[in-house]
Amino acid sequence: MKKGNSTGYVAQLILVTTLLQACCATAFFVDAAPQPFVSPGYGLPGFNSMRHRSILRDEVAARLKELGNVSDSRHVLERTFLSPAALAAGRLLASWMRDAGLRTWEDELGNVHGRSDGANATAPALLLGSHLDTVIDAGKYDGALGIVTAIAAVKVLKIEGKLQQFPRPIEIIAFSDEEGIRFQTTFLGSSAIAGTFQPKHLKNVDARGISIGAALRAASHLGTLESLSTMKYEPTSVWGYVELHIEQGPVLEAHGLPLGVVEAIAGQTRLAVRVEGSQGHAGTVPMSMRKDPMIAAAQSIVAIENICTHPEKGVGGSRGATAMSTAVNHAGAIVCTVGEIHSWPGASNVIPGEVMFTIDVRSKDDSNRETNVVRIESEIRKICRKRGVGCVIERKHEANAIGCAPGLSDRLNAAAFTAMRELPPFRNNFTALEDGGFTAPTLVSGAGHDAMAMASLTQVGMLFLRCTGGVSHSPAEHVQDDDIWAGSLALLRFMEGVLGDLSQNQSA
Amino acid sequence: MKKGNSTGYVAQLILVTTLLQACCATAFFVDAAPQPFVSPGYGLPGFNSMRHRSILRDEVAARLKELGNVSDSRHVLERTFLSPAALAAGRLLASWMRDAGLRTWEDELGNVHGRSDGANATAPALLLGSHLDTVIDAGKYDGALGIVTAIAAVKVLKIEGKLQQFPRPIEIIAFSDEEGIRFQTTFLGSSAIAGTFQPKHLKNVDARGISIGAALRAASHLGTLESLSTMKYEPTSVWGYVELHIEQGPVLEAHGLPLGVVEAIAGQTRLAVRVEGSQGHAGTVPMSMRKDPMIAAAQSIVAIENICTHPEKGVGGSRGATAMSTAVNHAGAIVCTVGEIHSWPGASNVIPGEVMFTIDVRSKDDSNRETNVVRIESEIRKICRKRGVGCVIERKHEANAIGCAPGLSDRLNAAAFTAMRELPPFRNNFTALEDGGFTAPTLVSGAGHDAMAMASLTQVGMLFLRCTGGVSHSPAEHVQDDDIWAGSLALLRFMEGVLGDLSQNQSA
Repeated sequence: MKKGNSTGYVAQLILVTTLLQACCATAFFVDAAPQPFVSPGYGLPGFNSMRHRSILRDEVAARLKELGNVSDSRHVLERTFLSPAALAAGRLLASWMRDAGLRTWEDELGNVHGRSDGANATAPALLLGSHLDTVIDAGKYDGALGIVTAIAAVKVLKIEGKLQQFPRPIEIIAFSDEEGIRFQTTFLGSSAIAGTFQPKHLKNVDARGISIGAALRAASHLGTLESLSTMKYEPTSVWGYVELHIEQGPVLEAHGLPLGVVEAIAGQTRLAVRVEGSQGHAGTVPMSMRKDPMIAAAQSIVAIENICTHPEKGVGGSRGATAMSTAVNHAGAIVCTVGEIHSWPGASNVIPGEVMFTIDVRSKDDSNRETNVVRIESEIRKICRKRGVGCVIERKHEANAIGCAPGLSDRLNAAAFTAMRELPPFRNNFTALEDGGFTAPTLVSGAGHDAMAMASLTQVGMLFLRCTGGVSHSPAEHVQDDDIWAGSLALLRFMEGVLGDLSQNQSA
Repeated sequence: MKKGNSTGYVAQLILVTTLLQACCATAFFVDAAPQPFVSPGYGLPGFNSMRHRSILRDEVAARLKELGNVSDSRHVLERTFLSPAALAAGRLLASWMRDAGLRTWEDELGNVHGRSDGANATAPALLLGSHLDTVIDAGKYDGALGIVTAIAAVKVLKIEGKLQQFPRPIEIIAFSDEEGIRFQTTFLGSSAIAGTFQPKHLKNVDARGISIGAALRAASHLGTLESLSTMKYEPTSVWGYVELHIEQGPVLEAHGLPLGVVEAIAGQTRLAVRVEGSQGHAGTVPMSMRKDPMIAAAQSIVAIENICTHPEKGVGGSRGATAMSTAVNHAGAIVCTVGEIHSWPGASNVIPGEVMFTIDVRSKDDSNRETNVVRIESEIRKICRKRGVGCVIERKHEANAIGCAPGLSDRLNAAAFTAMRELPPFRNNFTALEDGGFTAPTLVSGAGHDAMAMASLTQVGMLFLRCTGGVSHSPAEHVQDDDIWAGSLALLRFMEGVLGDLSQNQSA
């Protein structure tokens, strides 16, 4: 079925390309006057992307800059859950939502909502969003990008008169806590909406001893379990959740493309390894008589990298590959990181008695991950046996992958491709259509996102946007203005696609 | 010349063995009544080792136990520079020195001396000794062993009437500070005698803010630079310094022998390596796109071990081998240790931006050490280049090796061999004399000892005594009573050798 879709899609693209070249070649390069809406489909003749440049690109860039100045710190960007800057950012976002034709409110957990009922207020809603909180010394794109671009896309729908026609409600949510900086928990806002907020978290306290409940009450919320439980959305009231986020990694940059489709949010296994040898004086024990845990740890780290660079497929390893065809190879199908290492007693003149290190293994495919974690564990044990040192391997954390909905991903893929094909800065990348059909790069998100929490409520889809050097959680985080344009336009094209489908076929 | 010596030595041993078997076989196994001194040589017929068992073995073991209870802590052995326990230990050692026929005094740095002028008070003196201070939670052999066995050997000389005949002064010194625990400096006592005490150290303060000068004054010393400068021994007044110390390593235990001769105290290079890569999110950067300093560090650590297990000889690498023939292979000629390692930022979910580790390289041969340090540096740089990460290698500390005097080492070797050959617990190890001549194992001391400081004053020689499992700086530190016996007897045999030489040949 997928293959058939791809073929049809390529045929359509060739048609679109030809028509665009024939009819609208010059229109791409001038900021022409508004034109009447011609077709609900994307990439069809008559649509002039340049017309939306001021909203989808320039205004979004300006708003991201403005929002990036809303900070609790004078020197760095810092906006944690319910902080004065977070509340101010919420008010600013709400004003932009209203400018886009949405009615707004702040819920009991500080999430800011903007909603349009469209043509059918009781139909399952399309949710879009991302988070308004930041890490300490943050960049201005992480989170904010997904909210501001969604607002821009909706604003274009409003301007073009499509918002009221939209056959289901559209709701943008600016989530109040994704980073988990203030209370060391992530997804506070989205988990309350998804109905997975854990009551025990109400008692979490921040560095100043203030509990979440107290912080909510200080922000004029009730801060009770009852008030939070009312926030839960009914699954039947929601059609799906879509999020645009910066990639926070270097893959898109390496592919020279601004947009990619997230096919899954990786599952994760976190291991702690303790290698135990014979502690000794660095000067008195010959090399041949040592049982040095440092060497076993070093050999293990080299082996781990080797395993994850050449991973074995698990039993269910082909699932991801068949679910979505892609022009991007899946070298990144599994990633393994040794981020922390310590030795005991940790003196330069003592052969360590123990070396401890962590291993973080992530994959979109849970059985693949398990297969390779077992390989890693077995390889470490083999190295330790061979070197006569002990080793204790503990699994500290395990979380399964979240798959993005193939239906949403296909729509996002088409929207992203169309947006990139349509915009002057990127169209040259698409001169040669490959035989197998060209799609936007598909990626696995190694980082968690609000979509991870929302997946327990509804189907989710995500787009990633290229960020310079893959840098994030840093003031050096950067997104090109033209890439912002591609992101906003892709969200617009995605919604127009939904609108087009539903206009032709009223099934929800 | 060495070869000639060895051959003569083996011939002598075969003669000795034959004579012992013929004449004294039963005498080895009874604690016979004192016999008149027969020969100033060692291992000659008529000498009855069993006679000295009570002094050289049992009394030494009892005194080490008694001294091991002289502690500043009720729970662990702790005797730091000039502490109440250190002063009490000094008084106890002085009383044992007097019991051995020595006149005693405490010098301006708290070293305790016991001296006999022998037959010629103005001849260059033979110094013996070790340190009376300990680490925190120490064993009772480290340091104490060398002092108490020397006292026992001198006591036997006195009993046998040889002390007054001795053609040069014998002086035992219990050094007040070798471990450097209280003031973070080592060799305070021995450096003052060697004339290398650094004036700036007088201002060092301990954890309670007390300076060395103040601590000395509190112990009824002057604590001035002038008072310390009077401590310096004139090189012409000293013939040599000999020290027996526990090995603090596992080599002798592996060879099944209680005694070994130290041919050198290793030189040391200490390096600090910083590997700099690209910090990133553990979930978002594919394996193929990482510049992970952790892997480069791990590969470097594996390479370092490989280099030091198969070291290349430096230009002067053959010096050690020709200076002293040995039945022990020199696999331990170079030792390399990575004792400390850290990553930055050191979080399990972050690909490190930096990994720092230390390298400690020791060898008896300075050019060998340099050759292999250069190999290590070059290998690390190669690995870093190959992996696209930066690396900064700093040499933090460099100290050249101290060679023990071949003449003293040969004497100690002969004395150790004779002592082991002579004592019932060990003689079975010597039934088969090898063609090339059997000698005591020779070792390189990787740890520093007072002999290192004394080497700038006079020729030094050291014997190492086996300790269980190579364990030291721990209450688990242990030496067998029979090994103590071998150690005391070796010192006695060494002094008798000096006595015999000088009786026959009055050259100093």
